[in-house]
Amino acid sequence: MRLVSFLRPDGTASYGRLEGSTVVDLGGSAGGSLREALGSEGPFTGEGEERDLESVTLLPVIPDPAKILCIGLNYATHVKETGREQKEYPAVFTRWADTLVAHGQPLVRPQVSERFDYEGEIAVVIGKGGHKIARDNAMDHVAGYSLFNDASVRDWQRHNIQFTPGKNFPGTGGFGPALVTPDEVTDIASVRVQTRLNGELLQDQPISDLIWDIPFLIEYCSAFTPLAPGDVIVTGTPGGVGDKRNPPIYMKDGDRVTVTAEPIGELVNPVTDE
Amino acid sequence: MRLVSFLRPDGTASYGRLEGSTVVDLGGSAGGSLREALGSEGPFTGEGEERDLESVTLLPVIPDPAKILCIGLNYATHVKETGREQKEYPAVFTRWADTLVAHGQPLVRPQVSERFDYEGEIAVVIGKGGHKIARDNAMDHVAGYSLFNDASVRDWQRHNIQFTPGKNFPGTGGFGPALVTPDEVTDIASVRVQTRLNGELLQDQPISDLIWDIPFLIEYCSAFTPLAPGDVIVTGTPGGVGDKRNPPIYMKDGDRVTVTAEPIGELVNPVTDE
Repeated sequence: MRLVSFLRPDGTASYGRLEGSTVVDLGGSAGGSLREALGSEGPFTGEGEERDLESVTLLPVIPDPAKILCIGLNYATHVKETGREQKEYPAVFTRWADTLVAHGQPLVRPQVSERFDYEGEIAVVIGKGGHKIARDNAMDHVAGYSLFNDASVRDWQRHNIQFTPGKNFPGTGGFGPALVTPDEVTDIASVRVQTRLNGELLQDQPISDLIWDIPFLIEYCSAFTPLAPGDVIVTGTPGGVGDKRNPPIYMKDGDRVTVTAEPIGELVNPVTDE
Repeated sequence: MRLVSFLRPDGTASYGRLEGSTVVDLGGSAGGSLREALGSEGPFTGEGEERDLESVTLLPVIPDPAKILCIGLNYATHVKETGREQKEYPAVFTRWADTLVAHGQPLVRPQVSERFDYEGEIAVVIGKGGHKIARDNAMDHVAGYSLFNDASVRDWQRHNIQFTPGKNFPGTGGFGPALVTPDEVTDIASVRVQTRLNGELLQDQPISDLIWDIPFLIEYCSAFTPLAPGDVIVTGTPGGVGDKRNPPIYMKDGDRVTVTAEPIGELVNPVTDE
């Protein structure tokens, strides 16, 4: 099943089930929130008004996660290109929800930087919340998967030793297009994340290359912070980021960046200047 | 003026004005939120039911900030004791609101660590929100000041290069007792932050020693993320943290830690094991 968050033609926020090019609207007359629906475990199989996908405006899959936990340095190729050493535990930094943009919406290069970089990643959305979730039960807490472009303002990311500034400019977190439930991703380990800038393949690696796999990330993150329905763990980016290339590649106005990971889908964002 | 958030005897959350040992309850019949009241600019001078301070349960000053921006490495004494170099910009990491505890409530040492450390700090609470706030106007956006104990799980803070895990265990962010409006703090630069563990003075430094002062922090943070009423900037801790002492000092069950900064007040928290 594929679930999306969207604005109805009248501007009301809702969520629904994607069936081909049709969205079955599962919100009530006043709309609805996919995050809240995940908390009440759906229902996602119900009936609802059928809307043409073209008639709605997609929102970030979860527009308002309470927590977005971004994992850094989780592919050996990326650890190596950053010149850092591999540690015993992953790096965890955070985004706020007001950085998110939907599939099709522009990623925004802020005026203050020319060093706007892509990071294609697979996002895990929490369904059933929990604190101190054990690895063996971790996958029971996964509502599904989506794609993320953890676009980074590299100079602000390195102003000091914490990444917060470079990861929290508005319009820098591409998230979508759909939440794909685990039954549609029968072999998550074989999923390959690929990032293309204007069609050129720049990142390409299977999620089986993660240093810390998804069950570990859920166990580790929930060990220090309670996870709630709709929280997001962004699993990390493979090697091949623009900032570490020679010469470097940065995103600029008019570019088009895609993150692809079948069968999860494809996240496409144009790039604009602020 | 001193404002507090609290639970009424019936369990309803509200906020009010502290007058000596009396709280003038400014919430409506259904209670109220200081964060939301800051967004509507009060009113804080109105009348309300007078409650004995002893009859209410204090909450963290703002129980539900949308953003808590913690500044790291902002006193030269602390930069030096960590062995790090001073950079051109401050370190910024984040907490989630579910880490906060009120004045009088226990700070909780998690089971997974023996290295639970204090960090006394002054917190700035945003009143009028804004994006890209200029330094010259920054103080117009300050609703007031409070005290913060940015209690840190040192081993988890250093699992990798980002502080998130060690700064986000539940029950580790002491925040209170009151929001003190700027008219009561006529000379913020002269305010001295002092941290005592079981009465022993372990941190003691004037806020004038901040490497990056409050107007700069507001300008810098609002340059990358929009600030809203009730958001909190925690300004950084002076030298003298327990982890860098020889021998190290860590907080343990039964301890009592205080952060004092007159005229802002005194934040007292017992320490308990999870």
